[in-house]
Amino acid sequence: MTVTFDGAPKADHINFGVGQPSMDLLPVELIKKASDGFLAQAQSAEINYGPLKGDARTLEALANFLSSHYETSVHQDNLMLTGGNSQALDFLSSQLITTGDVVFVEEPSYFLAFQIFKDHGAKLVGIPVDDEGINIEFLESALAYQKPKLLYTIPCFHNPCGHTLTVKRRERLVELAKRHDFIVVADEPYHLLRYQENSPPPMGDFWQDDVVISMGSFSKILAPGMRLGWLQTSPNILKQLLSSGVLNSGGSFNHFGGHIIRHAMSGELLEQHLRHTKAALAERVDAMDEALHQHMSDLCSWRKPKGGYFFWLQLAAGIDTRDLRKVAIEHKTGFQPGPVFSSNQGLENFLRLSFAHYGCDEIETGVQRLATALRKHVAGS
Amino acid sequence: MTVTFDGAPKADHINFGVGQPSMDLLPVELIKKASDGFLAQAQSAEINYGPLKGDARTLEALANFLSSHYETSVHQDNLMLTGGNSQALDFLSSQLITTGDVVFVEEPSYFLAFQIFKDHGAKLVGIPVDDEGINIEFLESALAYQKPKLLYTIPCFHNPCGHTLTVKRRERLVELAKRHDFIVVADEPYHLLRYQENSPPPMGDFWQDDVVISMGSFSKILAPGMRLGWLQTSPNILKQLLSSGVLNSGGSFNHFGGHIIRHAMSGELLEQHLRHTKAALAERVDAMDEALHQHMSDLCSWRKPKGGYFFWLQLAAGIDTRDLRKVAIEHKTGFQPGPVFSSNQGLENFLRLSFAHYGCDEIETGVQRLATALRKHVAGS
Repeated sequence: MTVTFDGAPKADHINFGVGQPSMDLLPVELIKKASDGFLAQAQSAEINYGPLKGDARTLEALANFLSSHYETSVHQDNLMLTGGNSQALDFLSSQLITTGDVVFVEEPSYFLAFQIFKDHGAKLVGIPVDDEGINIEFLESALAYQKPKLLYTIPCFHNPCGHTLTVKRRERLVELAKRHDFIVVADEPYHLLRYQENSPPPMGDFWQDDVVISMGSFSKILAPGMRLGWLQTSPNILKQLLSSGVLNSGGSFNHFGGHIIRHAMSGELLEQHLRHTKAALAERVDAMDEALHQHMSDLCSWRKPKGGYFFWLQLAAGIDTRDLRKVAIEHKTGFQPGPVFSSNQGLENFLRLSFAHYGCDEIETGVQRLATALRKHVAGS
Repeated sequence: MTVTFDGAPKADHINFGVGQPSMDLLPVELIKKASDGFLAQAQSAEINYGPLKGDARTLEALANFLSSHYETSVHQDNLMLTGGNSQALDFLSSQLITTGDVVFVEEPSYFLAFQIFKDHGAKLVGIPVDDEGINIEFLESALAYQKPKLLYTIPCFHNPCGHTLTVKRRERLVELAKRHDFIVVADEPYHLLRYQENSPPPMGDFWQDDVVISMGSFSKILAPGMRLGWLQTSPNILKQLLSSGVLNSGGSFNHFGGHIIRHAMSGELLEQHLRHTKAALAERVDAMDEALHQHMSDLCSWRKPKGGYFFWLQLAAGIDTRDLRKVAIEHKTGFQPGPVFSSNQGLENFLRLSFAHYGCDEIETGVQRLATALRKHVAGS
């Protein structure tokens, strides 16, 4: 979001609209160590154009890292490196859709993904989600009269809703993709950020069905500024992607950054940081859940997320969270109103809170401020 | 090109088809020093999402660096960072063209740019070039019956032809772009690699006309694997580009790499390396020109380039350089045949040689091999 990159929130505001890690979770020392490890042995070829899929050693380290965290093993033949999930989604849009193509998106979903698809001329069709993920019955109905090229889903710790797509629905989604000949693009940056019991394997685990592309990223488990991520998919789909002009012209999307993160993965650096990050975020989930119970339970409903970054709050019908946001800003807090996540400007009485950008004390204070703003707004409207 | 990234040429071949710097021109020590300089003082924000245009200090350092090398001064308000010119061209295609749009390209031109435009559904129309650059009369004729969205040009030390667009033609090109409402996308990775007298300012110097986007890159003056480049254009066009989904979602395309190159620009590191690179490449131009005169002057014609990476050779009509290439490979050498640079599979009797990927002795040996292959091919055909 422009507001967060180009205009940081005011220092005395607690803006839960910011879906970024807090500064204390950005590991400058780790990056220094990993860079030193790489640069101490760096070769000329490592600052030349990189292999299209990414450096083989980086892919191997990534496959090992993912295999150690997933229930199932990951093979490097199913992986390629990207410049993070935003770049990956833009790349997939360039390669897989043409102007006028239909893209199915979840309703609600990550609003900047909408913008990326629109930049490529796609027509968006929203498919509702519920607590188990995308609604398969509604999807089947929509498929009866529209043919999407892609379906974009956030299957694990959804943005903004926080839910995880059930295993049964994953299987049905893949069946439908095969039957109706569309690609499932699964955006899974939060997959490794689980704070409770295990979640299903990532959608990339369905690579053998030849209709799924899973996007993973180091942005939320290491550092967004490194701009490194990966795709997990079938060799067939990889082959198509590797024929792209941009890759053949420029080589691997982030060759240099890949070497640094290879060193972070090969030692224990990334592993330790991931443990630290999960522990810190797990405390923040609890802090936000408790603060909501204490200050706002009469005003809204929510489900405590089991991972990821976000709480999704439902307010009373009739409240427009776009208006509420103005009041919240007066009270030095903030959030993302529901309609920004809607492909058709709906969801007025919902809002998204991120618990990743602030520590527990600030979360408590911010929720207090939000409750005050909401009571004032309700009283005034 | 896939062949060079994923399958390096055999060790005993001298393949002039490779348009990459030689390994000895890739400055690992410089990158180490610049990384150390950055990381010694790095802050958390510097590994978070970056500002959409790029870090302000990096843009200021870039403006100063460019101003010190150009005849005219460059202001950071006209700059934004990219992930190198391939990424930049893909980004501009996403933002500025939709499926079915017409893009004018030079005939011949950089073949992987064609692929990038085609990936975005563009229809390519070739406009011939001559020793002074794109043929303006032909362009005017083409504009009478077709309306391009973009015109893609390599104005300085052209790939593959080596020529530089004259100042007079630059002015006429910009006039035509204003009159016919198209954007000139100028690919200028070789602009700072001049080995003789000064060349005109880059096309970015026409930013105030609001129809020109110039793409510059660190790939050819520092290291391709860093994946950092820049756009120079008008505030109006920048504003449009900065509204893109991919930037607003992921932040600056290469925040981390940008900090390292900022340090390389702020000290003398990049300056020294550029001097070294130019001196080395100037010797190689001379070596290739001399070898061509010695071994092939009766078989082809060429103009000695004043900068960049490439010689463009014209052979006798009737020779198909795609066939010649097979003979060349048998003789352990190589080049890029003319038709790959043509938007309509023409230019059969032309070929491109890069002098950047080998030292002077290898250039002499490789040209000898090529001459032998050509004589054999001519005798046998």
